[in-house]
Amino acid sequence: MVEPMVVDRALERVRALLERGRNREAAQLLRRLHPADAAEVLYELEPDRRAVVLHELDWETIADILEELDEDEMVEVVESLTTSELAGVLDEMEPDMAADLLGELEEAEAAEVLQQMEEREEVAPLLAYPEDTAGGIMTTPRHMLRRHMTVAQAMAFLREHYQDEHDLYYLYVLDRNQRLVGIVSLRALVLADPDQTLDEIMERDVISVSPDVDQEEVARLLARYNLLALPVVDEENHLLGIVTVDDVMDVLEEEATEDIYGIAQMSGDAAIFSPLREAVRTRLFWLMVNLGTAFLASAVVSLFEGTIARVAVLATFMPIVAGQGGNAGIQTSTIVIRSLALGELALDELWKALRYELLLGLLNGIAVGLVVAGVALVWKGNPMLGLVIGVAMVGNMLMAALAGVLIPFALHRMGRDPALASGIFLTTVTDVCGFLFFLGLGTWLLL
Amino acid sequence: MVEPMVVDRALERVRALLERGRNREAAQLLRRLHPADAAEVLYELEPDRRAVVLHELDWETIADILEELDEDEMVEVVESLTTSELAGVLDEMEPDMAADLLGELEEAEAAEVLQQMEEREEVAPLLAYPEDTAGGIMTTPRHMLRRHMTVAQAMAFLREHYQDEHDLYYLYVLDRNQRLVGIVSLRALVLADPDQTLDEIMERDVISVSPDVDQEEVARLLARYNLLALPVVDEENHLLGIVTVDDVMDVLEEEATEDIYGIAQMSGDAAIFSPLREAVRTRLFWLMVNLGTAFLASAVVSLFEGTIARVAVLATFMPIVAGQGGNAGIQTSTIVIRSLALGELALDELWKALRYELLLGLLNGIAVGLVVAGVALVWKGNPMLGLVIGVAMVGNMLMAALAGVLIPFALHRMGRDPALASGIFLTTVTDVCGFLFFLGLGTWLLL
Repeated sequence: MVEPMVVDRALERVRALLERGRNREAAQLLRRLHPADAAEVLYELEPDRRAVVLHELDWETIADILEELDEDEMVEVVESLTTSELAGVLDEMEPDMAADLLGELEEAEAAEVLQQMEEREEVAPLLAYPEDTAGGIMTTPRHMLRRHMTVAQAMAFLREHYQDEHDLYYLYVLDRNQRLVGIVSLRALVLADPDQTLDEIMERDVISVSPDVDQEEVARLLARYNLLALPVVDEENHLLGIVTVDDVMDVLEEEATEDIYGIAQMSGDAAIFSPLREAVRTRLFWLMVNLGTAFLASAVVSLFEGTIARVAVLATFMPIVAGQGGNAGIQTSTIVIRSLALGELALDELWKALRYELLLGLLNGIAVGLVVAGVALVWKGNPMLGLVIGVAMVGNMLMAALAGVLIPFALHRMGRDPALASGIFLTTVTDVCGFLFFLGLGTWLLL
Repeated sequence: MVEPMVVDRALERVRALLERGRNREAAQLLRRLHPADAAEVLYELEPDRRAVVLHELDWETIADILEELDEDEMVEVVESLTTSELAGVLDEMEPDMAADLLGELEEAEAAEVLQQMEEREEVAPLLAYPEDTAGGIMTTPRHMLRRHMTVAQAMAFLREHYQDEHDLYYLYVLDRNQRLVGIVSLRALVLADPDQTLDEIMERDVISVSPDVDQEEVARLLARYNLLALPVVDEENHLLGIVTVDDVMDVLEEEATEDIYGIAQMSGDAAIFSPLREAVRTRLFWLMVNLGTAFLASAVVSLFEGTIARVAVLATFMPIVAGQGGNAGIQTSTIVIRSLALGELALDELWKALRYELLLGLLNGIAVGLVVAGVALVWKGNPMLGLVIGVAMVGNMLMAALAGVLIPFALHRMGRDPALASGIFLTTVTDVCGFLFFLGLGTWLLL
């Protein structure tokens, strides 16, 4: 059974051992943990203590631990290592992870470290790809075999050459021109007759991607077809790399966080307890953008100050008209954004989505409008006020539906992430239209 | 290379074939597609056409296709099957998927179908677990072996008994009391010497969960430890089931969608183009809840109608004070919610989070307050108005930080999903406090 407190207890124990100078024992303790847990302990340790433990650990253990951290964390942990030590550690890491770490270093430092690595030919090509593409998350393929091999020969070959290979999910079968012609899952290999050739048991309809495909698309393909790894190939079907399921789970989590933070108008790399200066920067930027659009809404209200001075009750209902429009619009835009992201909504379904959301907006608008009009009537005893607010409500809910569909579609088509910027434009529309409808009608009918 | 248009083209082709009465060819086409693609085609087909194709397909093909759909979609697709046909299809499905489908049927119908199934002993036990727990997403384990077997024997055994087993990632080693004592990955099996026993190569530190663990926790464990499957065991370590990586990717996507929709105040099962009546219900409910809280804000404004009638410019700045407070609060609550969900923030870090967010709120509040006060001064030429709005702004940003941390923590501690309900409470706080601070100060200083 898993022990949820394992990290906390280990951290305490490591600190205690280090305090008494028993550094080797502290390192020994880390080595016995699962690398994922050891990574958390190491990351939580104070930098000077971390440096002490790190120098008691062998490169392979450090490599295993680093692979469990994300890029920023890796860089922080290896700070105390010299370039030659770092090169030694990187040689023991999976090539994709080593490339990720190198990508985070300053260019000169990365070049120096790479120079000292033995496995640089495996890692260097990976540095060329943007980090959020298939190329950026792939690792260098090994276990490539020829089609005429028998199952028994393939197993013997694996036993001889790939003892320390972690990501062993599929064998890749290449032709004499090094082009990918088929894959054999470990499952198929184990279940096949030992005398069959790979050619007989391999899957020829290989689902693959080119290196420039977005990582989110890669994740979706892997999930859709229930694969454990996806080959990355060039135009001539040469095998460039493989993306494995564990990388993809990180991608799914990362992309979901990005979408969630986008809706709340923060950048996707925001994190709790990030340095204050950075937090102010990421959040204040969006607050200021929002402020700009909020002044637009204010300007609309300002046009009607004369009306409000005479019919101050309008001010009481202002938050309701704009607020409900904003809420309805965010419901619409969120469902559109998520459905586009999950591939449940296609770009050519714009009209269908628009018709559907407008109808929904009309129905919800009438329902909400009736309630608000009723409350206005009972509370303020003014039937005309009820009419004004009810009609403004319906109008604004229709605008919310329109903007909630059009804005994400437009941003998507422009190649921008709709999750990030839709909210700003949307509330601008619902605030401006809401106040305009409500105060305009009020000026006309209540003065 | 993957062909993104494959579903659209296949759908068109199937429709054309059915129109000309070539039903068998339409079914043949579906059978040649990847089940994930065939599932999409079948789901997109009109119900009467779907029924026609379905009756040309064998049960195993239908089972493979159904496994690619989610529960609601499965139920829709099998509508035209009789209970005995459905039982035949369910017998061919993975037990966890069969249980999911049965769980969606009406109780009497599910009982009748189960009665007619041959594999009911494998499926029936799975029905007992809530669907969002480890028990609810696990499948019945097979490939259970004894520790004294050699690698060669184990492989022969697998070849004989598990030819049609899809989820073959690990072998589970049981003792004579059927308790789980170790696991052997296929990778370890392939790389081991054929004469070694399972006992020699098995992993004894098995990470496992009990069936009542939340599915999100299961997903996190699998992702954290880079596992392909996780055994589910009872208190005595009897193997009850296994949760596989493909199920977990669906869980990650589902939970992210739920969180995203929660933030936009919709239920997690909302979907684009769901039946209109259902969409009205899911969205209108939250709009009405919001409306209730919006009236609270209105009531506060209403208290100050006398002030507003005399200083109508206050109405102009109302949207800004409340809006910025709301935005800042949603930034805070979203980062707290997501960090709690990802395990990056622990419940005992409440004070740390509170101190951090209050400090951030103060800094951002001062920055935003200064800008707004400056604009008010320049635009309306009223320094006192600038002071009122600036101070109200800072006060409301502090309230936003306070509410943005406390509300998710409180909901989390009460065992509720903070993503779902935080927004409502939060905007109530920022609206009410924003208007109270701003109009209260205005009444005091501007009248």
